[in-house]
Amino acid sequence: MARVFNFAAGPAALPEAVLRQAADEMLDWHGHGLGVMEMSHRSPAFQSIYTQAEADFRALLGVPANYRILFMQGGAIAENALIPMNLLGDRRGADYVVTGSWSAKSQKEARKYGEVHIAASGEAGGFTHVPAIETWQPSADPAYLFVCTNETIGGVEFGFDPDMAALGRPEVPLVADMSSHILSRRIDVSRYGLIFGGAQKNIGPAGLTFVIVREDLLGRAHKDCPSAFDYKLVADNHSMYNTPPTYAIYIAGLVFQWLLGEGGVAALEARNIEKAARLYAYIDGSDFYENRVAPDSRSRMNVPFFLRDEALNATFLEESTAAGLIQLKGHKSVGGMRASIYNAMPMSGVEALVDFMQDFARRKG
Amino acid sequence: MARVFNFAAGPAALPEAVLRQAADEMLDWHGHGLGVMEMSHRSPAFQSIYTQAEADFRALLGVPANYRILFMQGGAIAENALIPMNLLGDRRGADYVVTGSWSAKSQKEARKYGEVHIAASGEAGGFTHVPAIETWQPSADPAYLFVCTNETIGGVEFGFDPDMAALGRPEVPLVADMSSHILSRRIDVSRYGLIFGGAQKNIGPAGLTFVIVREDLLGRAHKDCPSAFDYKLVADNHSMYNTPPTYAIYIAGLVFQWLLGEGGVAALEARNIEKAARLYAYIDGSDFYENRVAPDSRSRMNVPFFLRDEALNATFLEESTAAGLIQLKGHKSVGGMRASIYNAMPMSGVEALVDFMQDFARRKG
Repeated sequence: MARVFNFAAGPAALPEAVLRQAADEMLDWHGHGLGVMEMSHRSPAFQSIYTQAEADFRALLGVPANYRILFMQGGAIAENALIPMNLLGDRRGADYVVTGSWSAKSQKEARKYGEVHIAASGEAGGFTHVPAIETWQPSADPAYLFVCTNETIGGVEFGFDPDMAALGRPEVPLVADMSSHILSRRIDVSRYGLIFGGAQKNIGPAGLTFVIVREDLLGRAHKDCPSAFDYKLVADNHSMYNTPPTYAIYIAGLVFQWLLGEGGVAALEARNIEKAARLYAYIDGSDFYENRVAPDSRSRMNVPFFLRDEALNATFLEESTAAGLIQLKGHKSVGGMRASIYNAMPMSGVEALVDFMQDFARRKG
Repeated sequence: MARVFNFAAGPAALPEAVLRQAADEMLDWHGHGLGVMEMSHRSPAFQSIYTQAEADFRALLGVPANYRILFMQGGAIAENALIPMNLLGDRRGADYVVTGSWSAKSQKEARKYGEVHIAASGEAGGFTHVPAIETWQPSADPAYLFVCTNETIGGVEFGFDPDMAALGRPEVPLVADMSSHILSRRIDVSRYGLIFGGAQKNIGPAGLTFVIVREDLLGRAHKDCPSAFDYKLVADNHSMYNTPPTYAIYIAGLVFQWLLGEGGVAALEARNIEKAARLYAYIDGSDFYENRVAPDSRSRMNVPFFLRDEALNATFLEESTAAGLIQLKGHKSVGGMRASIYNAMPMSGVEALVDFMQDFARRKG
């Protein structure tokens, strides 16, 4: 069958070039006579893959030298616990900005380990906007302030890197879940104390977690934190305190190489702006579909939309799938539709989706 | 280059047939128009992969109906913490049988969460044998008794499923790290409360952890256990409380299918007995090499051996690598050599190794 356009929220579409290279190298990586999945993580061959992947990730994001990049396991849901276990130290608690399902889940998990203060929330508006930073109210002495800079389910994205200094609280480390928009736009890493996410949306396979952490935040782990998830032990052992998910790191490395070849994050950002603009413009101009997120908070990666006549939902999904546009069903907590258009989704996929939506609206409207 | 014989302890060699199928299906799984790495974990396609993998794993090992199979992340090193976090409940501690590096590491990590009683230890003999079960001395009321049934580094393997009932302690759940010999021999799962391991030795890619747990042991997690690693939550959500390592589960599933096609665990066990016997017999008959493990405790999977003249180690490694026999260096804590001969290593690989060893001994002896 021809390749479909896959709008899944994650695990999600990967660049064809990456998959082709992975298939080609499956039994024999660079003439070594074995595949990457079979390589000892301590072997020079895998070490070279690891080192290149880390360096490319660092280059793509412009990660400063005083930050460590950790490759871990468990996804963002595990990190929701591991972050307070690693960062609370002797503080009583931490601050959370709640902008949707994922940050709500993060703050709930954190309550197992300390006090949680909600510094800002988009709940009153039905989680359709990012509260302006001027309205955030941090507590007196939080261990960190947590944000989810792209809410995959609600389709709400921070259009800015929060500036804790401008808020008068430069001492508070900013922690950001960037699972679903990492590498989709330029960011100023120096604004953050820690950036983390699951790889399965915009980087590579499920089962790989990235943590980018400022060095001064290492070494604060609670004694109950499992050694395998103690950021300092992971950093000191270059993510090999336990056996890392080697094949997932290799695929991530191929994605990083692909991104560099495409012109890096700035080039992808321009493309993502264009893709999202095309889709939102069509939705906004239609009286058949709608998006309910405030324009300045709309995600470039996850575009939820509703058919004004929800009775047509099942037919829309059936026909779009038949047309090779798959995984458009919205998250069950939100309903409607959602198109996830990560880096690997080409403009042609967005055009095909808009064409289908237009045709469907014409026929059913 | 031709495929090498890869004697790595893990990640380790995989069956060529599995790698070929994975390569073939990389861009298009069964005509669905996308690869497995790109599939939503909630999609019917991936659910079918997951369900089949779990059923095949259950069938291969004969897992009784009152046990749950969990697919997790973090490897055995993470489980060293997650096991006490999940199983201690209201008990003060647990018992450990120490037979080498891995069980020593396990009991050390457990001390973070409770009292550890060493019920038996092979330390006095330099970790060259498994203490006879009759000599084990469990404590009064342990939450569980822990064993590592195959010590990957020392090459020490339990040749039996410990019978806690015969020891007069049927109420104590037996917990076993089987990372490096799972599926290599028939086992009686009903003897165990929990069996776990990393997949990267005898199952598939690094980044996948299996936990086989008796249902009555679920629901005891400490409040500080991260939700993503709470066995009950993982079980209740069919290993999808967080996004599972989907591609690793797919590869594991292909390995399970391969094993079934080869005749299942009993057939592999017969082959493994033959492979190990060939290698140990040559070593024992040689005055150039030696293995120091007690014959009844020798591992069929990991065969450490020493050159009696250690000055030849570097030359041995150089020449064996050049001959396409790779990763024979012993673990740094032991020295010497180690040949890991998991299920995916064919008899021809063992024959090639013995031939090389003979030739090397003849030339240098």
